[in-house]
Amino acid sequence: MTDLLSGNAVIGQSGGPTAVINQSLVGTVEGLRTAPRAGQFVKKILGMRHGVRGLTKSDLVDLTQTQQDKLERIAATPSAALGSTRDKPDAEYCQRILDACRKNDIRYFFYIGGNDSSDTCRIVQEIAAQSNYDMRCFHIPKTVDNDLRENDHCPGYPSAARFVAMAFMADALDNAALPGIKVNVVMGRHAGFLTAAAALARQSPRSTNVGVTADRTHPHERESPQLIYLPEVPFDIDRFIIDVESVYSKIGRCQIALSEGIKNKDGKEIGPTLMKHVQRDAHGNVQLSGSGALGDALADLIREKLTPAGGKPPRVRADTFGYIQRCWPDASPIDSREARAAGGHAAKLALSGGGQRSGSITIKRTGSGSKGQPYASDFGCVALAAVAAKTRTMPSEFIGPDANVASAFIDYAAPLVGQLPHFERL
Amino acid sequence: MTDLLSGNAVIGQSGGPTAVINQSLVGTVEGLRTAPRAGQFVKKILGMRHGVRGLTKSDLVDLTQTQQDKLERIAATPSAALGSTRDKPDAEYCQRILDACRKNDIRYFFYIGGNDSSDTCRIVQEIAAQSNYDMRCFHIPKTVDNDLRENDHCPGYPSAARFVAMAFMADALDNAALPGIKVNVVMGRHAGFLTAAAALARQSPRSTNVGVTADRTHPHERESPQLIYLPEVPFDIDRFIIDVESVYSKIGRCQIALSEGIKNKDGKEIGPTLMKHVQRDAHGNVQLSGSGALGDALADLIREKLTPAGGKPPRVRADTFGYIQRCWPDASPIDSREARAAGGHAAKLALSGGGQRSGSITIKRTGSGSKGQPYASDFGCVALAAVAAKTRTMPSEFIGPDANVASAFIDYAAPLVGQLPHFERL
Repeated sequence: MTDLLSGNAVIGQSGGPTAVINQSLVGTVEGLRTAPRAGQFVKKILGMRHGVRGLTKSDLVDLTQTQQDKLERIAATPSAALGSTRDKPDAEYCQRILDACRKNDIRYFFYIGGNDSSDTCRIVQEIAAQSNYDMRCFHIPKTVDNDLRENDHCPGYPSAARFVAMAFMADALDNAALPGIKVNVVMGRHAGFLTAAAALARQSPRSTNVGVTADRTHPHERESPQLIYLPEVPFDIDRFIIDVESVYSKIGRCQIALSEGIKNKDGKEIGPTLMKHVQRDAHGNVQLSGSGALGDALADLIREKLTPAGGKPPRVRADTFGYIQRCWPDASPIDSREARAAGGHAAKLALSGGGQRSGSITIKRTGSGSKGQPYASDFGCVALAAVAAKTRTMPSEFIGPDANVASAFIDYAAPLVGQLPHFERL
Repeated sequence: MTDLLSGNAVIGQSGGPTAVINQSLVGTVEGLRTAPRAGQFVKKILGMRHGVRGLTKSDLVDLTQTQQDKLERIAATPSAALGSTRDKPDAEYCQRILDACRKNDIRYFFYIGGNDSSDTCRIVQEIAAQSNYDMRCFHIPKTVDNDLRENDHCPGYPSAARFVAMAFMADALDNAALPGIKVNVVMGRHAGFLTAAAALARQSPRSTNVGVTADRTHPHERESPQLIYLPEVPFDIDRFIIDVESVYSKIGRCQIALSEGIKNKDGKEIGPTLMKHVQRDAHGNVQLSGSGALGDALADLIREKLTPAGGKPPRVRADTFGYIQRCWPDASPIDSREARAAGGHAAKLALSGGGQRSGSITIKRTGSGSKGQPYASDFGCVALAAVAAKTRTMPSEFIGPDANVASAFIDYAAPLVGQLPHFERL
């Protein structure tokens, strides 16, 4: 029990913000304060402004004395209170991070983020080890994409999935009132978990809130969204038009959930082929979010293909949910609780003598939350390399036939998002 | 008291749906059931499927016996439960409406909608009078645009304004975490009330939730949105770029609220001049909603103009809030209550012997809700022609300098949207 390090702790937030990433920040702070012998070893608790970018400039916030009521308000605030970064450090950058850690006597390094962030954490940990600088490095999972390996699900996903389900429910009623073809574009470049959450919006048209559970995987055509397109399933434009026409000709309307990351059979993203202006981010990826171009291009195409000769074009609209889907201030209660606990678990492990010196926190589901079993989860910790820079996509058992989702996905996602409203119809 | 008519009542919903239009439907049904002597005169309470379009086909729902618990669930459901329509009937169409009323023995006609709907109501009432067909016609206000004359505000607006304020609050935190230039396009072709609601998102960066009220009209540059563009203020593209550059160069980010209906100094809409594809609706208007084209075009322009010679372009993103802003299932409590009561008031007037035989229900504010005075409102009724096909835009006292909003607007709008979350910053 003598291997605990004496020094400062630093916490950073990285990547796209979420509705609950501040819960993880606060959970880590609380964990560092309350762990046995914490006061003996952890001198200061510091926050990086805009992740490792701030750290390298010693742009740090001292959280050691932040009062609990303020922490509670921070935890309930969406987005990253410390600021975030998209920097993806190379070895030289990581060396500068290590230099900053030395300079600031940092012995406990916590990084809350997705797969790029876990990779940063991994490189920092390796460089520190090579330099014989004793530092414990923990990655705390966060991503609305839900694409981290080794996790049942990732903090941030349940809340974003909740937003998507609610938006599809409300929009379906709008589209039923003024019928037309509606394309809704959802975030998620490689993984379709967030787009698939649209299926949670399905309610049987005649169901009431008394004891009737709709089958949300093989929807009656009147259940919206009628069509779901995931990045894991090759997207064929001709097939898409046939699907839309089939639903529209039968019921006079069609609501479509479409991932921004849909790809053709060769794995090439559809967005850039249809979009007139292409914008690339720092990683060289074409920017898909923050633009309505993909939805608009598909709406134009539907309009063109479905206008009868000499007839009136159908009413076609496209909405791209954009950034509000990741920070909407109505977090899933389970998500808030787990994000907080994930931070606390990292702090506890970091301060447990003889325990894991570095790693990535994982969430495991211990109670399914479906078929009568209560939902329960627990935390684990895996080697950073097991998560770093790796991507998980929707497993095949979550994907149903006909560009749809399978019942296994509903069983998986429904317990995470919290209670959804029940809407009544006449 | 002998002038009450014996026959059926019909209720329709028209135009863009809102989060509370079903409250007005249910309020009308309840009013028709509970008014003194209602049972004596009102035989059936019918609902039009998709407004007057359904009425002309006698596509009606019998609501006479609908149970209260079901009505309560309908009231809490966003969008138009009866279905809506964009049909704008001419005299011949209105004649068919009257024929349907005769056929179905309708003596009480209620139409929930915006200015087009009040005009339908007016024409139907006039044709009925000319034909010596005794029928009472009431228009019940509804519009997220808030553009009906004679009203302090319109049911539907407070809830949509609440969504816009919340979205700007959450998005501002996102844009602070990963700084850039963010354009958010808000609904409202002619009236800027909904776009102006973005100003409700402003919080002083250092304010806490204990007794500090931010000045949300002359924001510190760090308060988002920094820039607001209303359709009432001529939009100058060069000035816009200067505004954005000024904020961005000082604080490294800029959040912009922009109405889809912004117009140049000649009153010509900016959207269609920038958009590559133009889609017109049934009224010949260019379709602005259901497309991200305006925001994308402005984002492209900002990127082009603000990229330093040989340098990296700034991070620019555009989101178009789209249809979810009008039906988001988190209605303002005041809005829900008033929408319900507006329907009830119409029913009460229709069944008050000797009272107003036809008219448009109006909302009057009797308590400001600001500067320590509690909020209160009451209902009135004006001639249909006073509201029909007329549009109200933001009064000049609501519009501040520098493409901004004035404190009078904040005093006006803040009481309507209900409590907003308080977000904490580090």
